[in-house]
Amino acid sequence: MTSAEAQPVTMFPSIDERHQDTRRYPHGVAFMDGQYLPMSEAKISVLDWGFLHSDATYDTVHVWDGRFFRLDKHLERFHRGMAKLRMKIPYTHAEIESILSTCVALSGHQSAYVEMICTRGGSPTFSRDPRQAENRFIAFAVPYGSVANKAQMQRGLHVAISDTVRIPPASVDPGIKNYHWLDLVKGLFDAYDSGAETALIVDTNGNIAEGPGFNVFAVKGQKLKTPAHGVLAGITRQSVFDLCGELGIDVIAGDIDREELKGSDEVFITSTAGGIMPVTKIDDRLVGDGSVGPITKRITDLYWKKHSDPMWSTPIQYK
Amino acid sequence: MTSAEAQPVTMFPSIDERHQDTRRYPHGVAFMDGQYLPMSEAKISVLDWGFLHSDATYDTVHVWDGRFFRLDKHLERFHRGMAKLRMKIPYTHAEIESILSTCVALSGHQSAYVEMICTRGGSPTFSRDPRQAENRFIAFAVPYGSVANKAQMQRGLHVAISDTVRIPPASVDPGIKNYHWLDLVKGLFDAYDSGAETALIVDTNGNIAEGPGFNVFAVKGQKLKTPAHGVLAGITRQSVFDLCGELGIDVIAGDIDREELKGSDEVFITSTAGGIMPVTKIDDRLVGDGSVGPITKRITDLYWKKHSDPMWSTPIQYK
Repeated sequence: MTSAEAQPVTMFPSIDERHQDTRRYPHGVAFMDGQYLPMSEAKISVLDWGFLHSDATYDTVHVWDGRFFRLDKHLERFHRGMAKLRMKIPYTHAEIESILSTCVALSGHQSAYVEMICTRGGSPTFSRDPRQAENRFIAFAVPYGSVANKAQMQRGLHVAISDTVRIPPASVDPGIKNYHWLDLVKGLFDAYDSGAETALIVDTNGNIAEGPGFNVFAVKGQKLKTPAHGVLAGITRQSVFDLCGELGIDVIAGDIDREELKGSDEVFITSTAGGIMPVTKIDDRLVGDGSVGPITKRITDLYWKKHSDPMWSTPIQYK
Repeated sequence: MTSAEAQPVTMFPSIDERHQDTRRYPHGVAFMDGQYLPMSEAKISVLDWGFLHSDATYDTVHVWDGRFFRLDKHLERFHRGMAKLRMKIPYTHAEIESILSTCVALSGHQSAYVEMICTRGGSPTFSRDPRQAENRFIAFAVPYGSVANKAQMQRGLHVAISDTVRIPPASVDPGIKNYHWLDLVKGLFDAYDSGAETALIVDTNGNIAEGPGFNVFAVKGQKLKTPAHGVLAGITRQSVFDLCGELGIDVIAGDIDREELKGSDEVFITSTAGGIMPVTKIDDRLVGDGSVGPITKRITDLYWKKHSDPMWSTPIQYK
């Protein structure tokens, strides 16, 4: 029962008044309980059901060159997720927008990764009834991050397809953006084991689903296709549909099996964390000639151009 | 962009140094980073992947009348879960036992709900690569809680069967005790909507799986059966197998469909949070004659008797 290393036998440990945290956190600003705080203070109780039951929804929007990108779409999805989970917070759409903007402004970041979160919260009695919990809103802005680093953006990512099955819609509605990622984490370790840099996991029929934080598109003969079922309806995925409309490129949502994906001319992944990112190797096979393709480049260029378009972006007031 | 209620237009908000938390927490003691702390200090960063990706495993053991119940089995499962998730913490089996015991002793609780948690943790760069995260161990002891309250223990629970499908093993290994509960929370709301008190959800074939935090057993003609596939191998579930061995009652793990469950003579659920709890109504149908059955009572009695048996329990040193 006792452990010599952990505690001297002669002295029973006492309770400290305050937690001493020596961890370092990325620079940024969070909003919680009406306060703006450094990231080192942005903490939730281990008793919050958002942690203990992953009973939470969230959304992530990015800021580029001082402007939110497609903020409205992220806010709409966040509100839809809360409604589906029967969660309520005391902030309007406009108030959340103001809070997010203030987090970014106070952080000083011109490019940022901005997350809004609603957790089930908790109750003083630790009741297991979710109807008795006080839901909780948290937001934060940290430096912009990307799934792919600079080198990977230039040469393309190496992706491995894992046999892990994405949590199906019959279990968790993918319309609720959620933190249930153990399937994606498993896929990621499978990918690392095979020497790849990131992963795609499959749907219940064995078709390609999505990866850790991103959707995927296949290009074949000037036509684009992205998985339709059981995947998150990503905002960047939607942006690709919108950009293809402008560019006159055909794009559909439908089943893609492993061999179809590997036989594509081009492949790219999409995420708020990085935008449109090329994939040039899948498992042991090069995609096309193994270099970043022309359609991927055209869409990527237009995607970044839209970041200064007032129809697609909103300026931050840095005071 | 601005909101009159949220912020006066003339003053830009500033960053506070410290979070002011006015929430009330249950009485208890937590262990984090080498410190013993009140529950109000037991908080994790919102950037911890244990929260943002629910990339964590845990176990819960209970203390009754000053003794841990089957602590070894909980510790073994916790270590198996960490190994499967490729997580490492700097504490041995014996050290964790000492930490848990100290949390309980410092809390003063004679009956407690004790949780040990390992999260993926994080890195100062907010890297998305789980291999770069520093895994993190947290433990806490709070007052003992039960799925069923006193009245429900006496008259039996009213359970509704939801169409929600438990996250399948092909997505998340149920051998890793995990916080992916949105399927169970959905089931719970479905149950509340139909006037029931808690829920059972189904497996991918539509057979009964489990409920929020518990396994289920059906009794028919002196024989017990519990779902075999895609469910958590609960320690209390295992205890029922062990107790049935002593009592000479037949028990098997196998598929149970809805009609079979509803046509049972007796039904009970099992959880560390409450032990063995009778179910006397499923959807709109009474189980048997609608009262708590004799086999459920026999197993429940022996279960509680084991709490003072040194083969099944370990005393806490309260100093």
